[in-house]
Amino acid sequence: CPPISGCNDDMEELLHWFDLIGIAVFAFSGVLAAGHKQMDLFGAVVLACVTATGGGTVRDIILNIPVFWLEHTYYLWIAAITGVVSFYLIRYLRVPMRLLMVADAIGLAVFVVIGTQKVLEMGYSATIAIVMGVMTGTFGGVIRDVLSGDIPLLLRREIYATAALTGAAVLVALDASGQLPRELVVAIAVFVTLAIRLAALRWNLSAPVARFGQD
Amino acid sequence: CPPISGCNDDMEELLHWFDLIGIAVFAFSGVLAAGHKQMDLFGAVVLACVTATGGGTVRDIILNIPVFWLEHTYYLWIAAITGVVSFYLIRYLRVPMRLLMVADAIGLAVFVVIGTQKVLEMGYSATIAIVMGVMTGTFGGVIRDVLSGDIPLLLRREIYATAALTGAAVLVALDASGQLPRELVVAIAVFVTLAIRLAALRWNLSAPVARFGQD
Amino acid sequence: CPPISGCNDDMEELLHWFDLIGIAVFAFSGVLAAGHKQMDLFGAVVLACVTATGGGTVRDIILNIPVFWLEHTYYLWIAAITGVVSFYLIRYLRVPMRLLMVADAIGLAVFVVIGTQKVLEMGYSATIAIVMGVMTGTFGGVIRDVLSGDIPLLLRREIYATAALTGAAVLVALDASGQLPRELVVAIAVFVTLAIRLAALRWNLSAPVARFGQD
Repeated sequence: CPPISGCNDDMEELLHWFDLIGIAVFAFSGVLAAGHKQMDLFGAVVLACVTATGGGTVRDIILNIPVFWLEHTYYLWIAAITGVVSFYLIRYLRVPMRLLMVADAIGLAVFVVIGTQKVLEMGYSATIAIVMGVMTGTFGGVIRDVLSGDIPLLLRREIYATAALTGAAVLVALDASGQLPRELVVAIAVFVTLAIRLAALRWNLSAPVARFGQD
Repeated sequence: CPPISGCNDDMEELLHWFDLIGIAVFAFSGVLAAGHKQMDLFGAVVLACVTATGGGTVRDIILNIPVFWLEHTYYLWIAAITGVVSFYLIRYLRVPMRLLMVADAIGLAVFVVIGTQKVLEMGYSATIAIVMGVMTGTFGGVIRDVLSGDIPLLLRREIYATAALTGAAVLVALDASGQLPRELVVAIAVFVTLAIRLAALRWNLSAPVARFGQD
Repeated sequence: CPPISGCNDDMEELLHWFDLIGIAVFAFSGVLAAGHKQMDLFGAVVLACVTATGGGTVRDIILNIPVFWLEHTYYLWIAAITGVVSFYLIRYLRVPMRLLMVADAIGLAVFVVIGTQKVLEMGYSATIAIVMGVMTGTFGGVIRDVLSGDIPLLLRREIYATAALTGAAVLVALDASGQLPRELVVAIAVFVTLAIRLAALRWNLSAPVARFGQD
């Protein structure tokens, strides 16, 4: 729904707010990554925009629907303005790596759930909804990490893909049960994803790690 | 063709089997790459799925046809299950790097040929069929290597792009000559690609290498 | 317009020439990057083709229009032939890094302007035209740098994104004012982009750099 005139129903409004929050926190995480690599202002803003819009762009291209920011240009503006503001803001920050992780976790949680929900509504199966939801939530961060020259957070051992998969699966399961109002289902799935990811960061949790015979 | 009810003709069945083999060996190569980087279970499974489906996904997006795994979800399941099984299997392996190369070579050979064949059947020219075939066969591995933080095998000096180009060209040439049954043409092209790539690995062959005046 | 029979008007012809120049210089820059990483002949040619066509491919996929080289195969041939010729040519070169930067700057300037112009003509807003123009001009180089294992030039601190954004904005502004002939507008925008980028390279100019509180 458009930014000023509002949405048609509560569900749409909730998803729209989550969308805007996701765009802003991922843009912020892009600027933090740019700070670690001493990029310049416009490099940082480009990285902010790519991180914020990358997951949804890949989702829309694969589903062959119009890329969301072509029609709703304000997503780009929110990402760019957040990028510029963050660029000057981070000069007063002292814990950038932890902040990047938390911003990324919030973006991950809202985008996984929004992506899964949108694809379910389009009539796809649970499998596709979960895969596309995980993709929506993770690919912006993957692009950010690859462009910054890092191994993507998604593939490291800190319960990242696990949190995304669980959140998407919780949404699909609660949606299929049909017991709870849809707004509540969305809020629970966001909460679960975020809680798993923040718990993994806080207590350094890790899933089983791949290793070879001779190790 | 669907996994249980079977295919309409022999050619379709051959291509379908090659497709499934390609998905499985590329998924396995993704888990091996994950093992080298000590990724966790779900990170490894995500990398397996992306490696297995990446080349075909890029091909379908560029040709603007429905992405193959949106309709045939079992491709994703095969990649994911192969990923989980491989994750536990590699704990008993001792020569992971060589195995990664061989699995990758098999995937390369079948996907280059399937990709070239599909694009020829859609009525595109030989040039486009070869380019799209090489892309189908190589981009999954490229994505795997980029996400793992390595220079893609495709661009290193071990006769990788050469094998893919030769295999695609052999298919196009034999197809144009029209002398041989199509199943045989496909099998020969897969064999040629695989033979060149494995020979390059076995005897450390290399094409001419780019170098500058001052070197 | 096709390579032999010519174009319908002067504007189309100017853009077409710029397009061919952009393809050739980006292909050359891809081979230079391949030389720095000692890739082999076909790896270098693949990198040349991907660098030359990457930006326009991503643009066409996002706009959901046919990818330009599917119909006009000669773009691929120009990239591939430039790649092979450059591969042997660079053996006689002595300043490859500077040359890579200059070739990249020319490709950037022409592709940013062509991309912006094309998207304006399709009826999109100034915001989308600028974003897509910057994408057309920069993504080929981004893919080249990521595949070579480098942080993209786009994100480093040498006035790269800044030059692209300024060039695209100049085109949109002059186009909106409607005072000048369109060929001149295009030529001015290319000149401005190139001048900013080359000046940044020559005098080591840099935009403000992202940094944290504790630095």
